[in-house]
Amino acid sequence: MYKATHQQTKAYNNQLVLKTIFDSGPLSRADVARATHLTRVTVSEIVAELLETGLIAEVGHGPSTGGKTPILLAVVGDARHLISLDLGADTFRGSIVDLRGHIHHTLSLPFQGSDGDQALELVYELVDALLAALPAGTQRPVLGIGIGAPGLIDTDNGIILQAVHLNWRDLPLGELLHQRYQLPVHLANDCQAAALAEYLFGEGQPGANLVVIKIGHGIGSGIIINGQLYQGDSYSAGEIGHIQAVEAGEPCRCGRSGCLETVASCDALVSHAQNVAIHLREAYLGSMLSCLAANPQAPTFENLVQAFQSGDELACQVALEAARHLGTAIARLVGVLNIHQIILTGNITAFGPRWLETVRWAVSQRLMPGAGYKLRLTFGSLGEEVVILGASALLLTRELGLNPTRFPG
Amino acid sequence: MYKATHQQTKAYNNQLVLKTIFDSGPLSRADVARATHLTRVTVSEIVAELLETGLIAEVGHGPSTGGKTPILLAVVGDARHLISLDLGADTFRGSIVDLRGHIHHTLSLPFQGSDGDQALELVYELVDALLAALPAGTQRPVLGIGIGAPGLIDTDNGIILQAVHLNWRDLPLGELLHQRYQLPVHLANDCQAAALAEYLFGEGQPGANLVVIKIGHGIGSGIIINGQLYQGDSYSAGEIGHIQAVEAGEPCRCGRSGCLETVASCDALVSHAQNVAIHLREAYLGSMLSCLAANPQAPTFENLVQAFQSGDELACQVALEAARHLGTAIARLVGVLNIHQIILTGNITAFGPRWLETVRWAVSQRLMPGAGYKLRLTFGSLGEEVVILGASALLLTRELGLNPTRFPG
Repeated sequence: MYKATHQQTKAYNNQLVLKTIFDSGPLSRADVARATHLTRVTVSEIVAELLETGLIAEVGHGPSTGGKTPILLAVVGDARHLISLDLGADTFRGSIVDLRGHIHHTLSLPFQGSDGDQALELVYELVDALLAALPAGTQRPVLGIGIGAPGLIDTDNGIILQAVHLNWRDLPLGELLHQRYQLPVHLANDCQAAALAEYLFGEGQPGANLVVIKIGHGIGSGIIINGQLYQGDSYSAGEIGHIQAVEAGEPCRCGRSGCLETVASCDALVSHAQNVAIHLREAYLGSMLSCLAANPQAPTFENLVQAFQSGDELACQVALEAARHLGTAIARLVGVLNIHQIILTGNITAFGPRWLETVRWAVSQRLMPGAGYKLRLTFGSLGEEVVILGASALLLTRELGLNPTRFPG
Repeated sequence: MYKATHQQTKAYNNQLVLKTIFDSGPLSRADVARATHLTRVTVSEIVAELLETGLIAEVGHGPSTGGKTPILLAVVGDARHLISLDLGADTFRGSIVDLRGHIHHTLSLPFQGSDGDQALELVYELVDALLAALPAGTQRPVLGIGIGAPGLIDTDNGIILQAVHLNWRDLPLGELLHQRYQLPVHLANDCQAAALAEYLFGEGQPGANLVVIKIGHGIGSGIIINGQLYQGDSYSAGEIGHIQAVEAGEPCRCGRSGCLETVASCDALVSHAQNVAIHLREAYLGSMLSCLAANPQAPTFENLVQAFQSGDELACQVALEAARHLGTAIARLVGVLNIHQIILTGNITAFGPRWLETVRWAVSQRLMPGAGYKLRLTFGSLGEEVVILGASALLLTRELGLNPTRFPG
């Protein structure tokens, strides 16, 4: 806790004006003054500076309220390019994104078992290709490189502490990329990035609390408290995939057993479906689902979803069992955090609304009665782009202060 | 998010100076300037104002660093009286407390089944008696009334939303007491108050994260994030007593089953010990613990602790089983929050360090391997006074800003 200096006040007020125009523009200078409680003189000064940076522009005239028609200000969506990467479990993807979260160009590099230095080379390749794909002759600067990746990430120092699927430990990826490209670099865990994305570009309410649970190969979550990403003491807040879900459960890749990932991740569901299929084959039952029967050794997650959608009894059993476990885990999460807005994202959402109803039901069965919860549990709206947009939101937050709710210091 | 005005800056800086002297005094004006990064002129102005309020005083001279010996400033512990109440499950207790958390006078009123209006009358009686017990002829003002109580409490509006043991629902206790005594009134859930107490008067590190788990008749916790009490969307953050601990467990008073309270609260342990005792008596076993055998229908928690301390096998079984369940629950809590400092308080701490070792072991068995936890799980240092001191900390925080880490607005 330090003093509020004039300089900090000014930086804070600048971000406040930019954020107000970003959130609610087009706005007149008078609108901005009303919304921020700043004086018109101060707003005019700050607006002049922002116009010079190109981040905002005068975009027309609003209706007159008696005198001259006021000039309206808006953020210039493509005033900056963002290079945003999703270093996912199957593929490295990267996009050129604008300030509004519009994705202009996307590249994918399957990494097919690459890890360590090979995987790092692949990141360079991806960034090189994205920079080469920037519109020729553009004067718009690159704001920086934002990255979301599965694993434990020191967001403040840009270090990947542990990313098992890439065999990275204590990799100073931020520094390496900064040295190579001379650009600001920010990285975060993919689930934490997803939470930032849903908060900034999705359904999050300004300044509110929000949990985003991402379920694909694994399970994790990102927690937004008072409009800020909450990371805990060592960056792993929200790591719910390895919280015990069942007593004496199946072994987990983390070394424990009965973790939530072993009962509710997409990989776990596929594995359960396989077991069911094998069991059925051994029992010579003819009633098993055709899409499992056709290739009982390797039903995919897509097979399982399809079977669920078509009402197959065994697929329903597997999917709804996972929904119940997930509901119990969410009830525990909500019991600790008392956060009402929970968003599910990732491949699991392919199961659709009926499956979500079962999750909701399971949550309600375990929440403390009478605690007055107004839980809103929904699917996210950002689809497959959620980590790319999260990496973008991270950049916008850290570089432009587009999400400051706390006074600096 | 609003602008930082000059007035807010000033109020913030005043609190900053007071807090700095509170945390680190006695300090010279120059020390304060160094610690806060404020100019000496600003510090001198603020110190002059604070001296006038009587909250701080000049308490002597520090060593010279070349020139004159500097005058040292310290918070005057008894510059204000605090009326702090603990509306516990057995007894209403109230104390006169000073700014330093020193307890000067305590009264207890057993409420013997009182509830509703009767219980409210008892609160009035307690406050009346405490105000009457203030030192005669004192000029020191009363800062206000602080209250900790089990239940769901709207801290912002001073409303007891639900306190089952008192049969209170939506009781505007803050407003009622304010009208009666014309004093500021602040109330919070007892576990949340306990967390504030440990943070301000106990082992909490400034600006850090902390969870305080209080186990007596029930179980609850209070969460401090960045030095601030975190209450969630509807004031029930940290309500871990009713999170599912075991599948298909015993019924809980909340209406669910298998809640943490059913396996790890002091009441649950007594009940388990009773069951063990009854079972043993029925089996005509002579080896049962004498203190259970003497009165097998009603062993108390104290009996159980005594038996555990003396190494009784069955008492150990009951107590260590609870320790294991608690450890699993703490691992879940830590998995979500990623907070490294966890403090246990309440009657359960009577089991002592050997029992705590088992809790620690159980936590370590369930934390995600390799996540780099540096968990510090300890007993609190404030003993039975923890809720009284929590009520005091709440008052100090809300009335004097002794714990502001966020800029107002």
